[in-house]
This record gives sequence, structure tokens and C-alpha cells, in this order.
Amino acid sequence: MSHRPPFSNLAESLPRSVPFVPPEETERQMGGRFQLRLGANESSFGMSPLARQALLDTVGEAHWYGDATHHDLRRELSRLHSVPAESIAVGAGIDEILGWITRLFLNPGDGVTASLGSYPTFHYHVHGFGGLPHLVPYCDFRNDWGNLAQKVQETGSRLVYLANPDNPTGTFLKRNELQEFRRRLPSDCVLVLDEAYVEFAPEDDRLPLDTADPGIIRTRTFSKAHGLAGARVGYAIAHRDMIAGFDKIRNHFGVTRAAQQAAFASLKDPDFLRHVVAAVNQGKADYYRLARELGYTPLPSATNFVAIDTGSAETARWWLHSLQKRGVFIRVPGIAPLDRCLRVTVGNPEERKVLTRHMRELSQEAPNRHGSHPG
Amino acid sequence: MSHRPPFSNLAESLPRSVPFVPPEETERQMGGRFQLRLGANESSFGMSPLARQALLDTVGEAHWYGDATHHDLRRELSRLHSVPAESIAVGAGIDEILGWITRLFLNPGDGVTASLGSYPTFHYHVHGFGGLPHLVPYCDFRNDWGNLAQKVQETGSRLVYLANPDNPTGTFLKRNELQEFRRRLPSDCVLVLDEAYVEFAPEDDRLPLDTADPGIIRTRTFSKAHGLAGARVGYAIAHRDMIAGFDKIRNHFGVTRAAQQAAFASLKDPDFLRHVVAAVNQGKADYYRLARELGYTPLPSATNFVAIDTGSAETARWWLHSLQKRGVFIRVPGIAPLDRCLRVTVGNPEERKVLTRHMRELSQEAPNRHGSHPG
Repeated sequence: MSHRPPFSNLAESLPRSVPFVPPEETERQMGGRFQLRLGANESSFGMSPLARQALLDTVGEAHWYGDATHHDLRRELSRLHSVPAESIAVGAGIDEILGWITRLFLNPGDGVTASLGSYPTFHYHVHGFGGLPHLVPYCDFRNDWGNLAQKVQETGSRLVYLANPDNPTGTFLKRNELQEFRRRLPSDCVLVLDEAYVEFAPEDDRLPLDTADPGIIRTRTFSKAHGLAGARVGYAIAHRDMIAGFDKIRNHFGVTRAAQQAAFASLKDPDFLRHVVAAVNQGKADYYRLARELGYTPLPSATNFVAIDTGSAETARWWLHSLQKRGVFIRVPGIAPLDRCLRVTVGNPEERKVLTRHMRELSQEAPNRHGSHPG
Repeated sequence: MSHRPPFSNLAESLPRSVPFVPPEETERQMGGRFQLRLGANESSFGMSPLARQALLDTVGEAHWYGDATHHDLRRELSRLHSVPAESIAVGAGIDEILGWITRLFLNPGDGVTASLGSYPTFHYHVHGFGGLPHLVPYCDFRNDWGNLAQKVQETGSRLVYLANPDNPTGTFLKRNELQEFRRRLPSDCVLVLDEAYVEFAPEDDRLPLDTADPGIIRTRTFSKAHGLAGARVGYAIAHRDMIAGFDKIRNHFGVTRAAQQAAFASLKDPDFLRHVVAAVNQGKADYYRLARELGYTPLPSATNFVAIDTGSAETARWWLHSLQKRGVFIRVPGIAPLDRCLRVTVGNPEERKVLTRHMRELSQEAPNRHGSHPG
């Protein structure tokens, strides 16, 4: 220990923590590269040719800061979603925006309700701003919205977080369930509806946008369906008075110029997005079949990944490590009972072929293969 | 006003504010594009061909998140600066890192000392985390380090901010001044030494790095000499126990994959950096001559811009608006007495030719041309 100057009281109390170990770190520990990168729900279907061209075109402007107001991108999102541009904030991915939200609303000690095992980066920010988490177990791997609403009321939580479609389960609450959930929330609680995967959800069952409602913030991203995870750009949609709050605290020049223009270009290519969604749906069908063939239970997914319930945390860990030895990166959630699941990003057809071969071969040695989920 | 859920007590108290209006916003108000972009100290000398190639090469990886540990970039910086990799943190530009620093150290109400009129984004973060600013006027447009140290002692400030070379004046404190300044600071105060422009400072007069000292954090960037402002990547160098604190709060996946690799590549091209510094030095000599020709006083600059003292805030504002009408973007600091100065980024030879023409033509109409600073 050095005699360093003290951190703030809150910062001293925090652990040094990392929401996710990046695959590059695992690769360095393994001493080799992953052959299949199917653990971070990055898109295996690349980006729109328009976005690619925008990235190439902006290389020559990399010495210029981006537009801190995100004017053009917000205007385009405004058109697409039929909401005012003043109801849209752009940040360096949903991760950064979740940091803004927790910072904007939480006094130290304020309650926050969420599902036990939900997105670690949200919880990282809640702890980081001194929030007090109140956690509700999943019910059959679905967000238990009835109990979440009740927990909010019991605890007077200031925020409630719900990912829909959900990560890491992939499950989905339909609009009527969400509408009832929203109705049960007190007026001083903000619903943070994380819709990182919304493009993969059935269109008719999605909750309509309503920027007149000051009690809900929706977060979306270009990291998943748009295939721009590395460019770091996400956005929030909410009542303009909520969005205005972000201007008090955000890192105004935090998004790269290239990302702004690639995201803008990607919005001009709805055909590409439809193609990605269709390709992912095919891949999910493949994964469902493969999981059942191996004697496991795939959870129905409204995302670009499938969570496969192996029946036990021990089995899931075995798969994680066995696949890693074969150069395959997937994830297993850290918290029970989600830790029974393999979370596998939908690969492209070639990647799925390789994955299928590895999993079929490995299944001969897998523990409890004929355990709780006979094939 | 909507009946929105309340923000935190601190956030409610903050104004909605923007540290800098981006030139794109001004362009929209003008209804046209700037011809010369010389107001944000972006580099007019582009980036290293190696960095350019890295940006092109990484387009195909834009669907992958970057390495949250910044392993390769930190290792390369470690070699370059002969400091441990554990003493380096990478973020989305110095702006983001200044946010980390204020958040990591400040309890609400804690004192922060800085020069009056210094970098607005630092002050934005101080306010944003509830710090109490104690401001010391510049002395002859130089940071008054003696009075800054005294103010820290009087107020028990937890942080003291000093940009060296300075922005917006361009002036520079030599190593012996900084060493004496550091010695006068109490052990529970952190010196935030913002070295965004350090590559332009005379090498022999720079303060050596000392990561054994837990009382100082140095911030640096790829936005200026490296010409990668749009890519958003900066770093901090400090004692490893200080750097470890950032891992408690930072946005781990906040830097783009392309930026990581462009920055890494740029470090491999020291010749390019030398070329930029030499070219900027030529440009500064041009600006000094031009300023004197117009009857103004250029401040000696250790950066990639020159602050030109016009003698009055009224004159400076006149130049700002007159140049803007001709499509030239420069800045004038907002706070007296710095608001007498034009802050002009060093352009490339072509840009300087155009700027010189505009300024010579305009000087016929300029107010107080033969005022306090006769030519």
C-alpha cells in the first residue's frame, strides 16, 4: 500500500471490479486466439455495406472531434421512431448510458430493483453510485414482472431495471405484460427498459414508444443487430425532460466521429437489418435442435443468442471450459440458477457448423448427459 | 414541466450545460460550413500513415468490442514512457478521464483548486460531482503556481488542476517550477496535471514521470499531436494504486476497437510525431508574426495553438464574429482577462495562407487597432 490520497468515501467502499472479462484477456491466459467468438453477443453477420462505407469515408476525418450534439444521428433516429429529437440521447453504447441513468437518479442509499442475475454492467453502475440493490429471482428464466413491481413498492426503489428481450436468458415479455408492469410502478420510480436486442423481438409484441410518459427510459444500441459493437454507440429514448437531464452530466464529446456516421448510415439500410434478423432466426432454430439433440433445454430466445439450460451449474462450467480448450468462446452466467445455462451467440452458418461439430464430439464426455434433461 | 421522477439532489442542482458548443452546431446556425476549422485545437497535420492503415484494417472488426483491459496499448505506452503498465489507464479521451478523477476523489462539498478560466470540461466535471471550486487568476496569462499551492493549503482542496502546457493560453511551466509546486502541495491533495499538449513542449523542460509519487495524475491524449481527436482515446499515468481506483468506476468497454489499434499504431511512428511538432513550430512562428503585424501580442505557445491578446474582450469578440462570417472557426475564452485573446489552432501552410489573408483584410476594420498594443 502506498500512502495515496484517499478516494471519496463511496469510491473507497467499492471493490475493484470488472463487469466482464474480455475474450482477449482469456486468450492471453490460454496463450492462443479463439477460433469462434460466440460469447459477447456480437453480430456474426457484420455491418451494413453503408455503415462499412461510412467507416472508410470517415478515416480522413479522424483528426476532428465528433458533433457533441449528435444532431444528424438524433434527427435520423427521430424520423425512424417517430419521436422528437429532444427525446433522444446518444452515448458510447448502452453501458455508458446506464452509467448516466444511475448517476442522474440515485442518491447514495437509494433503492434499485432488478432481476437477480441481470446485466452485470447495470449493477456495476448501481454500486458505483451508491445505490442499494433489491433483487428478484427470475421465474422460469423469465423476468418476474409481478414480483419486480411489488419489490419496487415495498422498497420505494427509485429505479427498476428490466432488459427486454432479456440478457442473459433471451426470454421476452410481451407488450401487455409490460403495460401492466408499467401501470403498477409508482410515479417517482423510473423504469429502465434495456432494449439492446429489440430488433430481434417479434414486431407486433413490442411495447410502443411513448415519450409523453416521464417514467420510462428505453435504451438501444448499434452493437447487436447493426453489428457495430466495436464502434460504441447507443441511445436512450425518453421524455424530453428526462433526456435533458443527461446534458447535465454526460461526456459530451465521448462518441467517435466514425461511430456517429456509421450508425447514421446503418439506419439508412433497413433491408440489411431484416436480413440479419432472418439469418439469426435460422441460427436460433439450429441451436434449438442442437441443444435438444444433446439432451438439454434451449430457452426460447428473442435475441441474437440462445441460453441452453444444461440442468446444472457443474455441467455448464464443464462445457464452458471444454469449449474454451477447443478455441470456442461462450459465456455462462455467474449467478444461480442462470449458471446452469450456456449463453451462445448465434454464429453464421460456417461458425454454427464448427460449433456443432465440437459440441457433438464433446457431448460423449459431458457430465450428467442423461441427468435431469434426458434427450 | 412534466411530472417527471426527481433526479438526485446533486443532479437537480446542476444547470443543463455544455462545456463547448461544437463547430457543427455553429455551422447549422450559420447555415453553412466552416472553411477553416481552427477553433478546437484539432491537428491540421492529420495522423500517422500507420494509424490510418490501422483504422482501415479494423473496419472489418467493427462488430467486435474492444479489449476492455487495453492490454496492448497499455503495454506499448509502458515501453514508451518506461513506467509499469499498471500505472496506465486508457479512456475515451482526457475528457472522460477527468470525469473519472473528479468522481474518484470528490465527496460533495470537497474543495478543488484551479486557475480561473482553465479547461471548462474539468470544471464541468467538478460541478457534476459536487466539488467546490476555488479559483486563482492567471498571472500574465501563466498559471500562478505559487498562489495555486497557497489556495490548496488555505482551502484543504482535494484536487488541484493544472494544464501544462496550458489551455487556453498556451503558456508553459518548466520542470523546476512544477517540482516546487508539487513540493508545496499537502499529501492528501492530488495534482491533476493535464498534459494534452505535452508533445509540443520543449523536451528538456518537461517534468519527468514518477509513478512512485501517489500525489500526481498525468493525463495525455491522442487527440492533439497524434491527430486522432475523432477516435477518442486518452490515458492517465499515475501510481498504480491510483490507477487501480479507476477500475472501480470506469466504463470498461468505452473505447472503440478502431481507436485502440490506431493509437497503438501511432506510437510506432515517432518520426511522424517529430514531423508534426516541427510543422507546428513553423506555424506558430507565422502566427506570432501575423499577430504583431496586426498590432496584437501573441502569447508564447508550447501547444498547437496560439493565443493572441487583442487587448480587449470587445476586440476579441469582434474578431471571433468577423472571422466566423468568413467561414473561419476559432475560439475566444469566456472568462476575463482571457477573453481578450483569440485562440487559434495552428493550421497547415495552406490554411495559414487563407487565415492570413482574411485577418489582413479584416484588420482594416478592426476596433482599437491602435489601442493598448500599438504595432
